[in-house]
Amino acid sequence: MAAERDGNTARLLISCPDRPGIVAAVSQFLYSHGSNILDASQHSTDPSGGTFFMRMVFYLEGLDVTRAQFEKAFGSVVAEPFAMQWRISYADHVKRTAILVSRYDHCLLELLWRRRSGDLDAEIPLVASNHPDAGPLVESFGIPFHHLPVEPDGKQRQELLLLELLEREQPDLIVLARYMQILSPAFVSRYPGQIINIHHSFLPSFVGGRPYHQAYQRGVKIIGATAHYVTDELDQGPIIEQDVRRVSHRESVRDLVRVGREIERIVLARAVEAHLQDRVLIHEHKTIVFD
Amino acid sequence: MAAERDGNTARLLISCPDRPGIVAAVSQFLYSHGSNILDASQHSTDPSGGTFFMRMVFYLEGLDVTRAQFEKAFGSVVAEPFAMQWRISYADHVKRTAILVSRYDHCLLELLWRRRSGDLDAEIPLVASNHPDAGPLVESFGIPFHHLPVEPDGKQRQELLLLELLEREQPDLIVLARYMQILSPAFVSRYPGQIINIHHSFLPSFVGGRPYHQAYQRGVKIIGATAHYVTDELDQGPIIEQDVRRVSHRESVRDLVRVGREIERIVLARAVEAHLQDRVLIHEHKTIVFD
Amino acid sequence: MAAERDGNTARLLISCPDRPGIVAAVSQFLYSHGSNILDASQHSTDPSGGTFFMRMVFYLEGLDVTRAQFEKAFGSVVAEPFAMQWRISYADHVKRTAILVSRYDHCLLELLWRRRSGDLDAEIPLVASNHPDAGPLVESFGIPFHHLPVEPDGKQRQELLLLELLEREQPDLIVLARYMQILSPAFVSRYPGQIINIHHSFLPSFVGGRPYHQAYQRGVKIIGATAHYVTDELDQGPIIEQDVRRVSHRESVRDLVRVGREIERIVLARAVEAHLQDRVLIHEHKTIVFD
Amino acid sequence: MAAERDGNTARLLISCPDRPGIVAAVSQFLYSHGSNILDASQHSTDPSGGTFFMRMVFYLEGLDVTRAQFEKAFGSVVAEPFAMQWRISYADHVKRTAILVSRYDHCLLELLWRRRSGDLDAEIPLVASNHPDAGPLVESFGIPFHHLPVEPDGKQRQELLLLELLEREQPDLIVLARYMQILSPAFVSRYPGQIINIHHSFLPSFVGGRPYHQAYQRGVKIIGATAHYVTDELDQGPIIEQDVRRVSHRESVRDLVRVGREIERIVLARAVEAHLQDRVLIHEHKTIVFD
Repeated sequence: MAAERDGNTARLLISCPDRPGIVAAVSQFLYSHGSNILDASQHSTDPSGGTFFMRMVFYLEGLDVTRAQFEKAFGSVVAEPFAMQWRISYADHVKRTAILVSRYDHCLLELLWRRRSGDLDAEIPLVASNHPDAGPLVESFGIPFHHLPVEPDGKQRQELLLLELLEREQPDLIVLARYMQILSPAFVSRYPGQIINIHHSFLPSFVGGRPYHQAYQRGVKIIGATAHYVTDELDQGPIIEQDVRRVSHRESVRDLVRVGREIERIVLARAVEAHLQDRVLIHEHKTIVFD
Repeated sequence: MAAERDGNTARLLISCPDRPGIVAAVSQFLYSHGSNILDASQHSTDPSGGTFFMRMVFYLEGLDVTRAQFEKAFGSVVAEPFAMQWRISYADHVKRTAILVSRYDHCLLELLWRRRSGDLDAEIPLVASNHPDAGPLVESFGIPFHHLPVEPDGKQRQELLLLELLEREQPDLIVLARYMQILSPAFVSRYPGQIINIHHSFLPSFVGGRPYHQAYQRGVKIIGATAHYVTDELDQGPIIEQDVRRVSHRESVRDLVRVGREIERIVLARAVEAHLQDRVLIHEHKTIVFD
Repeated sequence: MAAERDGNTARLLISCPDRPGIVAAVSQFLYSHGSNILDASQHSTDPSGGTFFMRMVFYLEGLDVTRAQFEKAFGSVVAEPFAMQWRISYADHVKRTAILVSRYDHCLLELLWRRRSGDLDAEIPLVASNHPDAGPLVESFGIPFHHLPVEPDGKQRQELLLLELLEREQPDLIVLARYMQILSPAFVSRYPGQIINIHHSFLPSFVGGRPYHQAYQRGVKIIGATAHYVTDELDQGPIIEQDVRRVSHRESVRDLVRVGREIERIVLARAVEAHLQDRVLIHEHKTIVFD
Repeated sequence: MAAERDGNTARLLISCPDRPGIVAAVSQFLYSHGSNILDASQHSTDPSGGTFFMRMVFYLEGLDVTRAQFEKAFGSVVAEPFAMQWRISYADHVKRTAILVSRYDHCLLELLWRRRSGDLDAEIPLVASNHPDAGPLVESFGIPFHHLPVEPDGKQRQELLLLELLEREQPDLIVLARYMQILSPAFVSRYPGQIINIHHSFLPSFVGGRPYHQAYQRGVKIIGATAHYVTDELDQGPIIEQDVRRVSHRESVRDLVRVGREIERIVLARAVEAHLQDRVLIHEHKTIVFD
């Protein structure tokens, strides 16, 4: 996996109707252009009549044409005949990742820290928040912080300012690191499959507000967190990653919140990492996450 | 923990309004009657005005009175002044455990096997089922099997027969080891806090039928199972134990069912074990499960 | 994954020096013979100068030649030019699995039960043991049981009888389901990569005898089990699967043994399942286990 | 658990030869002085002739004497007759925690962050390191940072300076947050049971240097981390906490290091938290960690 992050590799992501010959066509194409495959994963919902998904990581070294030529040729020679939806991303293009946060900064800090330690291949052009609290932390990492308060008379204006800000910065990914504002359908549709949220419960359990209180009330023996893409329906988007921890009758709500912070941080970081490495494909309301 | 299962120990379970002096009164009483405490656990929902729960395991050796005298004295000297709900159970009284099952026999087999290997301190006077399939397996363990089919014109008659059977056998515990029939409120109220069910999902996710299909549809990354006491509300009873396994887009519904079997077996066995060792207290719609 | 077990599929396993064009050559060959790829996984220790591993599952339906012709052609057209080590196995050839056991029957029972429930695609022609105890259990599953006691004057004779028995039955796999005898190098070399053992610790911790006693002495907070291929060095063979459970100061050795049984059963069953589905490749003293 | 951290509570830790009447004596004493027990846990290695351990959390509110009088009375009335080793610590005395670190700052940062978020009840008077790298991070938290480089001609001088520094600051606990220097026996004996180290493997596997390399070589399927008290024998001290993550053939050594960082951080933080809450008792070369 480490080799995948070398600057000199590209990732090809494909989905198309399943039928014989797809792997042969793609691998033959890559080989004919001098590229060696480093890793490949595939999945089919059903070999007869289902959808086929593939991720291939290949070396750019040895490529006999430019990137643009390669993409153009792939489109006409392979993708079109197989009716593929596809994209190629390059490991040397570090994805621009905007982070939105409210008051709780544990998820934010985890991402900033992983970025700094080199675990997360992201460029973070901005952090925005409806609260001023995270400002000093963000700025200590040398990242611009934008305080966009929500006015009492409605959040429309704030969201507009946020959209303008994002338009300027052109993020590839927007991470809601405990951003406690619901985004409008217009906002969401502007960034399809590009907004990741962390929900502090094991979805579909405890949708909506105060999930730790709900978990405490129900007396569950395990709590969790869920990272998912944001869609118009609250907490219903495609799930990318989940994890859990065992709890008992001894934990108060306050304890659940504390234990939960540990899970939230890790689950969100893993999901963001998977997205940044182009390991996630969305299919209807579910995800394929390649290892 | 192993020592707890020695025949010569008893378990005292208490719940009462929390106030100072409870532990002192109980431990002083035990000491004054020559009994040594082997293990003690306690929990309080809130030290001021909450409910206090305690489990004490103590040696019967050295007791200066009979069991009956001891219980009587405890009732008047300790329990009454503190308004305790309490019970004492003796490790040498092996609990009578009836098992109800439908077609899937994995949970049943796990219990029978743990019983035989000595891991489960249960006497199993009967297994009953609405299907005949499990008969040979059960009888190979030397346990009576009762086939009580559900007639097309209603399940009332079957439940009546089942109740009669249970009345004769006087079980301390009834385990629904994937028993796919909903018990009537009358049945449930006959055995309050004495019926354990295994639900094949991580509750409160996927209440009701076909939880693995629901989990597959939702695209969760972790599936689970839940053992709980049965109450009138479907899948809403106090949760005793839960566990989970990681899954991915690769697993079909059939795979989830297979992986799930492994979790169901273990979760149910752990919950039954906890109940048989008197480690579970029910408080409102939740449980306290002492280690 | 479920589809993989359909009778009409085959599994191709390859290892060879890594170099460009392998995937293209294999997938092109399959496509040219009318076969659709159902699943493919690959791994490379190092794309320049390393070893490449691949598992491909493909449909036999549509194959334009016989299996024998297909294999012959693959050998000359693809395998030879790439210096591949390879094998093809067919889902409709259920692997013959011999089980050796001593006194503890929990791992044995788990395998027998998974076989009967259909979770394990194995034919079990025999169970052999140096103790008579497991006989009735094994025979209740309709499987021949062989009691081969170890004589006080040495185990050579017993091992010879065991080898004769195995020669007659031609197993594809031999599972040591808590078989407490060390096999001679001659025995092991007769079945290279075909003998799976379960060791009741988290290797490399607690090699050798009485691992739960060792774990208790050391005061570890997590115990485990390890399934591995057997080699001449005790407990040093390639690891296939491991799992763990959390324990505490409360657990006695007897408790560790009991908790451990649960882990041993599951770890061994998963390893055997992986082997039977041709998901394991051995490379030097390690394994590649494809999902 | 949350209530335990209220300033108005104290924790009593006891170990003594097990015999009847201990709980009665202690709880009676507390009750007689007007103190209510909030939580109690106990453990006995063996009720006849073993060692008894207990932790009791009690409210100071209502105490009819001063803390000093209370301790004095407890010593003579209860502790002496039962030959107890005991201590009382007060939740309003926040423990002084010195942190030593080398180059890797992930464990350090986790502790600093948990301190700031209020999850860790510690005062951190100093961080010392043999490398200058962590300085800016530490100082951004307002904590004094001491760079004590190890000279090429020996580490004696550095350790002396470190000891002097610690003597001045009087820490209750010293945390080696990936401090890559071995402490001398003299240093260790100065702080018995007060130095916690994080080892980046699942002990007793992979003692000593480069454990991730060792794990990679052995081909384990699960890696781990271990927090333990430091004793004279390298990596042999009493284990406080361990945790693990599943890995596969896909992970390179670099990947193991990255995954491992996540485990190390959490395991060390949990161990430090347990120590700070007086939940750990050392018995010979093992620990009792109360929940």
